[in-house]
Amino acid sequence: MQIFCRIAAILFAGTALLAIVPAAIAEEVQQWSIFEFSLRGPASGNPFADVTLTATFTHAGQPPINVAGFYDGNGIYKLRFMPADQGKWRYQTKSNSPELQGKIGTFDCVQPTAANHGPVAVKNTFHFAYADGSPYFQIGTTCYGWTHEADEMEHLTLQTLAASPFNKLRMCVFPLRYPSKRQLYPFERSGNAWDFTRFNPEFFQHLEKRVGDLRDLNIEADLILFHPYERATGFNSMTPAGDERYVRYLIARLGAYRNVWWSLANEYDLLKNKTTPDWDYLFKTIVAADPYAHLRSIHFSQTMYNYTQPWVTHASIQNGSAVQDFGRAVLFRDVYNKPIVFDEVKYEGDVAERWGHLTPEEMTDEFWHATIDGTYVGHSETYGGDQNNWLSRGGKLLGKSPERIAFLKKIVDAAPATGIDPIDKWQNVHLGGKPGEYYLYYFGNEKPADWLFDLPRRGITAGMKFHVDILDTWNMTITPVNQDFTLSQPGRYEVHAQGDAKLTLPQKPYLALRITVER
Amino acid sequence: MQIFCRIAAILFAGTALLAIVPAAIAEEVQQWSIFEFSLRGPASGNPFADVTLTATFTHAGQPPINVAGFYDGNGIYKLRFMPADQGKWRYQTKSNSPELQGKIGTFDCVQPTAANHGPVAVKNTFHFAYADGSPYFQIGTTCYGWTHEADEMEHLTLQTLAASPFNKLRMCVFPLRYPSKRQLYPFERSGNAWDFTRFNPEFFQHLEKRVGDLRDLNIEADLILFHPYERATGFNSMTPAGDERYVRYLIARLGAYRNVWWSLANEYDLLKNKTTPDWDYLFKTIVAADPYAHLRSIHFSQTMYNYTQPWVTHASIQNGSAVQDFGRAVLFRDVYNKPIVFDEVKYEGDVAERWGHLTPEEMTDEFWHATIDGTYVGHSETYGGDQNNWLSRGGKLLGKSPERIAFLKKIVDAAPATGIDPIDKWQNVHLGGKPGEYYLYYFGNEKPADWLFDLPRRGITAGMKFHVDILDTWNMTITPVNQDFTLSQPGRYEVHAQGDAKLTLPQKPYLALRITVER
Repeated sequence: MQIFCRIAAILFAGTALLAIVPAAIAEEVQQWSIFEFSLRGPASGNPFADVTLTATFTHAGQPPINVAGFYDGNGIYKLRFMPADQGKWRYQTKSNSPELQGKIGTFDCVQPTAANHGPVAVKNTFHFAYADGSPYFQIGTTCYGWTHEADEMEHLTLQTLAASPFNKLRMCVFPLRYPSKRQLYPFERSGNAWDFTRFNPEFFQHLEKRVGDLRDLNIEADLILFHPYERATGFNSMTPAGDERYVRYLIARLGAYRNVWWSLANEYDLLKNKTTPDWDYLFKTIVAADPYAHLRSIHFSQTMYNYTQPWVTHASIQNGSAVQDFGRAVLFRDVYNKPIVFDEVKYEGDVAERWGHLTPEEMTDEFWHATIDGTYVGHSETYGGDQNNWLSRGGKLLGKSPERIAFLKKIVDAAPATGIDPIDKWQNVHLGGKPGEYYLYYFGNEKPADWLFDLPRRGITAGMKFHVDILDTWNMTITPVNQDFTLSQPGRYEVHAQGDAKLTLPQKPYLALRITVER
Repeated sequence: MQIFCRIAAILFAGTALLAIVPAAIAEEVQQWSIFEFSLRGPASGNPFADVTLTATFTHAGQPPINVAGFYDGNGIYKLRFMPADQGKWRYQTKSNSPELQGKIGTFDCVQPTAANHGPVAVKNTFHFAYADGSPYFQIGTTCYGWTHEADEMEHLTLQTLAASPFNKLRMCVFPLRYPSKRQLYPFERSGNAWDFTRFNPEFFQHLEKRVGDLRDLNIEADLILFHPYERATGFNSMTPAGDERYVRYLIARLGAYRNVWWSLANEYDLLKNKTTPDWDYLFKTIVAADPYAHLRSIHFSQTMYNYTQPWVTHASIQNGSAVQDFGRAVLFRDVYNKPIVFDEVKYEGDVAERWGHLTPEEMTDEFWHATIDGTYVGHSETYGGDQNNWLSRGGKLLGKSPERIAFLKKIVDAAPATGIDPIDKWQNVHLGGKPGEYYLYYFGNEKPADWLFDLPRRGITAGMKFHVDILDTWNMTITPVNQDFTLSQPGRYEVHAQGDAKLTLPQKPYLALRITVER
């Protein structure tokens, strides 16, 4: 982990009285990693509320970037920064505390390692890419409360994730309703109540450690800032001022982690003490406070948030049917012109509730439907029961869909980097890809005996040759078709292969074709 | 027609010099009909641009309503008003012309006839109703250019509509690209060019006559203000100021017609000289200028307008697949929380283009899919070729879907007045209705041999009895099922009839079930 997160930490000898600033020693920090420094400052009063601390980072020829620092307890203040450009950076602090004011320093931002692709952002309207240009094909899963478990369990979750296809994890910052082992809370106690003006640094240090662990696995952390699954503490129903303080503190601490996404809430519409203008305000707060423009969305139960708002980077959708059949998911692309991420589409598992008892076949099928429609899905599973499963706590994956989702990942990782898009959406709901180059034709639960080679004419001309692989998405096999598919003269809308060539199929469900141009 | 549109017209003897205002004679005007009066004023200069004329209408205890008048040529100015409340109304004019300034008068607004239900507005989020509370189940059709034909043809169109199920007609104000018989244009010629500052009253008088004809058939006129199908005249690509003048003139002339809907454009995104802010501005202009809040939307080709905007009353959608299968149309309801009207879903007909060669079975099937999803559809047909068909000119309907759509209309006219909504949208994509009371289960092109009586448990309890009719939506038959369906104890999500009763079906496509509670 230290490889990706060089901490320019200042060491304090016990109760050292003076702040020490990195002086002439040129620190080296990888591009898109974290440059961090610490300062000693006031510990009396309420440092979270009373002390302001920001720093301005400058790089030759670019606009300065302002970053908020945060109080980390015990008289220690920290500032974190993720440099997006290589070369020399300088910084200078600003504070209402003389101890923290006017500290200056420099560091060198150096080339990242091969595994560090930078933060993920929207690319090509409907898709994502890393900052270095590498494609990012979102394959999500959810473990709401995994960071509230004991170390052993959390390590198990990380180990499971490391062996999984998932490259995004949805996770709640705040604890959930059921008893959890860690017993760490984000705020300090004040008598019998929580003091929402005083954060508990230990809680956030642990959260950061886990976000860093995910980053080191190249997994994006889709941080859910509020959720309706725990009400006793009041964390999820603070005042607007409390919400804003918390969000700003999170950004100051976690914004420099390149793998962070901001999910304002899970099922926001079940949090009855906040109104839509409250959510809008929090989005605007994040836009203004997050210098890195991490991805931003919000997840709903019944009432969709207005994802056309400019501060939403992608639609984070819960829908129990949109990726269960053809021609549905694509409709949301037309509405939003943003990436569509179905973060909740029911889960694989065996609980009685129908939101949690998809078969592994159904869960896998949903990923394929979403993929050919040019959209993205999140997985999770409920085996073990409502409160003792991957969805709630992490641990081990027991389902059969993850390895099939890994098979899909293998396929899409070899697909065009520009993303998979519907080709002829009003006529051919089975087909996604890139015209003239690459197609995935998905059959769902149909069991066809053959397929007439037939493509929409966009992007293709007579004489082009195509290779076809039969993909068995359930049995995870790729079977090349040993047949020549050279295109005939196009018709008005479609093109066949010469001799109206057909290919034979094994009459099983969950088949797909991969059709690639031969150059 | 005069029954529904009492015109309090002032008669002028030839070149009478003085404006005459209705004096003490109490005019009677039906609620939601048009009160109109005329004034003589300046005919020199450019009366359209130079003369302002408005009137304030007042009714005891209600806020005053301001209405714009308009110049109708030959020195005549008119004001039209649609009273929404019965009783005594007073008015007073305001103008920059002394001849038109300060004219006052009164009229009595009386009970409407049985056929006059007032204007249509949104009701129950996803549906529509007339102002008198009667339900309005939208069944649309489109004849873009029907008001640009010769009288004989236009009368034929009206005669066809009178015998059809359609209660909304989409129609373009401006002429289309092909030669039309009427040869009337909305602006005056100035040398070799059009003068967009001078309207041609004769054009609008004809348009009003036809909108009135539709009203008298209880057909809503969805007026398309701009379209991309004619570019030579420049009507559809005026300056923003020209567009606004035209829209305000239309509102002054036609706003008082209760059956008017404003459709800002057909395929707005093909009109390249207007930007989204231009369209937004026109919407806001209409909101401010139309005292009756007629329904407002806009139709697109590829790029959806942002129908979440508050000035859009319903989504006017073109989509060639959303109503061709189950579980699609409903997704737009979740996004918009407004009525969803699929104004273009391809057309029945026989042109080579695939947007215009649906079979009648497919066209009818689309209406049923939309209906069970709680959304609405527009029909049209292309028989006769691209420029000589119902879609372009009106005339006769040649297709086989209209009588089937009339059968659907008969069904929905007897359905709950609150509208048909999806019942359990993520689980049962076949079912629409009203929980506990009324269900339509549509099978589409499946050919089931039987159906296990099975309803989602929302709104129902054990012991309730249901009656079932088998609807053959293509053959237009209603076959009552002579079986008792008394509900068992509900399961977690679903309820069966006692003895797990099944009903037998005739294994034909396009069947539906109508399931109604027996009281």
